[in-house]
Amino acid sequence: MRHTPSGAFGSCRYKLKGLDENRAEYERLIEVFRAHDIGYFFYNGGGDSADTCLKISQLSETMDYPIICVHVPKTVDNDLPITDTCPGFGSVAKYVATSIREAGFDVASMARTSTRVFVLEVMGRHAGWITAACGLAAERPGEAPQILLFPEIAFDEDRFTAKVDDTVGKFGFCAIAVSEGLRDRDGKFLSDSGLRDAFGHAQLGGVAPVIASIVREKLKLKYHWAVADYLQRAARHIASKTDVLQAYAVGKAAVELAVRGRNAVMPVIVRKSGRPYRWSIGVADLKDVANREKHMPRDFISDDGFHITGRCRNYLSPLIQGEDYPPYSNGLPHYVRLRNVAVKKKLATAFALK
Amino acid sequence: MRHTPSGAFGSCRYKLKGLDENRAEYERLIEVFRAHDIGYFFYNGGGDSADTCLKISQLSETMDYPIICVHVPKTVDNDLPITDTCPGFGSVAKYVATSIREAGFDVASMARTSTRVFVLEVMGRHAGWITAACGLAAERPGEAPQILLFPEIAFDEDRFTAKVDDTVGKFGFCAIAVSEGLRDRDGKFLSDSGLRDAFGHAQLGGVAPVIASIVREKLKLKYHWAVADYLQRAARHIASKTDVLQAYAVGKAAVELAVRGRNAVMPVIVRKSGRPYRWSIGVADLKDVANREKHMPRDFISDDGFHITGRCRNYLSPLIQGEDYPPYSNGLPHYVRLRNVAVKKKLATAFALK
Repeated sequence: MRHTPSGAFGSCRYKLKGLDENRAEYERLIEVFRAHDIGYFFYNGGGDSADTCLKISQLSETMDYPIICVHVPKTVDNDLPITDTCPGFGSVAKYVATSIREAGFDVASMARTSTRVFVLEVMGRHAGWITAACGLAAERPGEAPQILLFPEIAFDEDRFTAKVDDTVGKFGFCAIAVSEGLRDRDGKFLSDSGLRDAFGHAQLGGVAPVIASIVREKLKLKYHWAVADYLQRAARHIASKTDVLQAYAVGKAAVELAVRGRNAVMPVIVRKSGRPYRWSIGVADLKDVANREKHMPRDFISDDGFHITGRCRNYLSPLIQGEDYPPYSNGLPHYVRLRNVAVKKKLATAFALK
Repeated sequence: MRHTPSGAFGSCRYKLKGLDENRAEYERLIEVFRAHDIGYFFYNGGGDSADTCLKISQLSETMDYPIICVHVPKTVDNDLPITDTCPGFGSVAKYVATSIREAGFDVASMARTSTRVFVLEVMGRHAGWITAACGLAAERPGEAPQILLFPEIAFDEDRFTAKVDDTVGKFGFCAIAVSEGLRDRDGKFLSDSGLRDAFGHAQLGGVAPVIASIVREKLKLKYHWAVADYLQRAARHIASKTDVLQAYAVGKAAVELAVRGRNAVMPVIVRKSGRPYRWSIGVADLKDVANREKHMPRDFISDDGFHITGRCRNYLSPLIQGEDYPPYSNGLPHYVRLRNVAVKKKLATAFALK
């Protein structure tokens, strides 16, 4: 299990309303909890999950059902507050930085006779943490990626093409990492900027081909583009060891908190020092976590908006340290799947979820 | 160097014409070779490079300049004849099979409440070797990828959507690997099938979003798609050890052949046995290599055209065996770049390449 990517128990996207709006849902929850003698509830995810977990934790006060709810942080978006980072993010960061470094070597070797510009699209619709992580690959001037396009910085086509032109002039090639959530000055997603299929339907997703088109139209340079999508967040084969240790630690801490009777909390990672990176596990109240997003500080992005600062690098770098290779079988990572056999239902399915 | 992806010496795309068509080019080559006392010429690449290397090798016979030309095979397309495989391919194969396995786990865990279909686009415009390699990840029924779309099999939208529908019904999700070179019955690339940007310009590349659109239009299923592009062929971090050993071996053999005075040849990998995989280095005449492509045999593709056969699996599996991790520094693979300082020119640039 420790070596397997993805959510082993599957995924739940049910959005619990407030107690006032749908009391019946909460009553049903208590019915089910009571029937199965459930006293502990663990919920693993990001901001939305923290909110759901907080709501369920309130059953103990508002509806007199004794329950201990602990939220276990996990999101590649890295946007939970209080915790130093979110399990999952460090491994995505290691993957995207590695990938754009590797593709950068490829483009650099092709650039004199063929492809000059490479565009990699990464996740993070609201916050540029993953885009920023790509920047770790550029340790010396001229190294890929030379340009990062953050969702926090409105896209300016003229400034962008000037930067690409300048980069190709100086270094012979240009590698660009772009967030799926890149927007123009009017707040419109570039990925929605009018790409249509043969039937005239808007083509969803894919900001990389849009950026690549701009490069071709305005600069007449040969380009390639990639969209990492699920590959980035499932890439267990190149997980960050730091991330794996932290993921395990918050899970363990969640159980310990529950056993100690702590309701409505979330274990967090506390950075004790940067160099060397030392961390421990702390505890946050769920009410301080739910519905609050951790954004990229402006001073993590360079003045021109196209790269990360040293401050950002100092924050990100420890999170990708160390390798934690999975076992291999037949030349491929050996991953396991739980059977996920649910306990037998004790109640009739009386309640239709709305 | 052994751990670094990409072409260390850069890339040359100059297409040499036949001796009859452009004698001046050949005369200039001899001038340069003579000025620098060049007696050995090594050329590393695929089919086009083999053709160029063959043409240069003929200088010794047709123009009386003593030269030894050896072609060193390397192409992710795996389409050179005679050799069991082409260095580069085994590592791409390992990367794409790993990636679609990992993304498959992700989709499977999301499928009950969200994304049902995942599409990964891979390289190989003319031959389906890389698409076939994705199939290695599916070792048991229901495992990702359940569908492969080969450039060798004309795309039939109705048969495809029926297969996706059936797969989602049986296994809850569907992972698809598609070749960038997928064509319809009229031989038209699906990636050229009418995707236009806001200006009405044809959008180049990207068959994955086209396939994803079909899934959405016809089956109303939620999807994600990825385009691996350069990531796949630069992914040194998950290289196949077998591939790395073979790449080194053909390079070494090329030097040995040259020293022994063998002109117009290419070292090849000879499969001595399948299980266990045993191989040695042989020699092919360049005239038997140039301008001949190794296609996927039809019996490597299943009858319904959507997967690989056991025969194909037996061929591919040995090529991805073993890991050969690069060294890491600061949490990222440590790659090196040659300075590539050319020797001083001895002749004036008298000849303008056409």
